[in-house]
Amino acid sequence: MKNCIIASTSTIYGGKYLDYLLPHLSDLYSHTNEVLFIPYAQPGGMSCDAYTQKALEAFKHIGKNVVGLHTFSNPVEALNKAEGIFTGGGNTFRLVNELYKMDVMQTLRENILNGTPYLGTSAGSNICGLTMQTTNDMPIVYPPSFKTLGILPFNLNPHYLDPTPNSTHMGETRETRIKEFHSLNNLPVIGLREASWLELKGKVISLKGQLTARVFLQNKDPFEVNPTTDLQTII
Amino acid sequence: MKNCIIASTSTIYGGKYLDYLLPHLSDLYSHTNEVLFIPYAQPGGMSCDAYTQKALEAFKHIGKNVVGLHTFSNPVEALNKAEGIFTGGGNTFRLVNELYKMDVMQTLRENILNGTPYLGTSAGSNICGLTMQTTNDMPIVYPPSFKTLGILPFNLNPHYLDPTPNSTHMGETRETRIKEFHSLNNLPVIGLREASWLELKGKVISLKGQLTARVFLQNKDPFEVNPTTDLQTII
Repeated sequence: MKNCIIASTSTIYGGKYLDYLLPHLSDLYSHTNEVLFIPYAQPGGMSCDAYTQKALEAFKHIGKNVVGLHTFSNPVEALNKAEGIFTGGGNTFRLVNELYKMDVMQTLRENILNGTPYLGTSAGSNICGLTMQTTNDMPIVYPPSFKTLGILPFNLNPHYLDPTPNSTHMGETRETRIKEFHSLNNLPVIGLREASWLELKGKVISLKGQLTARVFLQNKDPFEVNPTTDLQTII
Repeated sequence: MKNCIIASTSTIYGGKYLDYLLPHLSDLYSHTNEVLFIPYAQPGGMSCDAYTQKALEAFKHIGKNVVGLHTFSNPVEALNKAEGIFTGGGNTFRLVNELYKMDVMQTLRENILNGTPYLGTSAGSNICGLTMQTTNDMPIVYPPSFKTLGILPFNLNPHYLDPTPNSTHMGETRETRIKEFHSLNNLPVIGLREASWLELKGKVISLKGQLTARVFLQNKDPFEVNPTTDLQTII
């Protein structure tokens, strides 16, 4: 049975790394002593060691140890033995490229589907969608494919941003970008605002946090859904 | 001799499509009656016909006809015969994918290098760089390669945005994204703000408009350059 928290962001404004999620992570990882951390999104180019240390500092608050996947000589075995998994944010292209290079995409998928508790934030949430094609990240490396884990039956746009009122910037809004995606693709997209997350328990996908999420379906007007909605029912 | 205008944006705040560039386009296309338009970035998923019509409306003000590359059965021949070329903005992944699918990347490059006057805006400017890896666009389609025309000896980031003061958004800033690019790549990147453009005349690459541009070199602090600077000299 799937058991995941898939969050828009690791950090909310004014907060510390993961702090707003910690009570929920205590529940998610209630039977986990050590979380296997996938650091390959490497935000700002940060090293895997430094990023793992950052995750460890946050998880100490709920009494969990954290080990980086990059420290194992056999990553498939490490994933299969993991009591819990966390993939951090950063650059989705880099993360996906590395998961393909290491040939662990399928193993990661199977473990999540089989119920290993999983936390994703930002890029680590993006990869739970069907494809990574609604990421906000720069294509800093050319991955072998844009296909991702398909834990969710739709794509995500984390850090979803509404158009800024009175903006003088002429670059595309997030909504326009997703419209461009839908001019070539028919996958549903959920725009997940910061401080929102999805909780997966088996087949139920609940929107959590205080905010609504924005749903984009091909050839339909986008609409908002309220917290606690089961997203499985609306796509 | 290269003869190009490579602009951050087609449209500046409060203005109409291309209007701020029209006097310069009169000069660029002084010996051009008909401009060949490459519409494949298809902003917002707009059709190639509608996009070509939009370009035509703007170019009427300087007495030029516009024809869409999509209307030719032999696009290589159309590019080779063109008196002037314009590639509009939109989604860079879609544009690059189409140029590869049509097998015209090399032909377009040769014509620009041989002196066919060229205008690029946004995605149409991005492709003048060495790779498209510093685009802001969503990966809505998987192109065969991220390599682009290499008319410029660096990459561009069009619509460059400074961090928003007091922003509560926790997504990466543009500068962080470019730093992530530089954690894996050593190509210089020019952050070109809206209302700025590059003028290429032979080997000289002049920054035009009223604003400074931001230069990002691997392992160096980013810095600003003033208008009229020849960017060839600083990378």
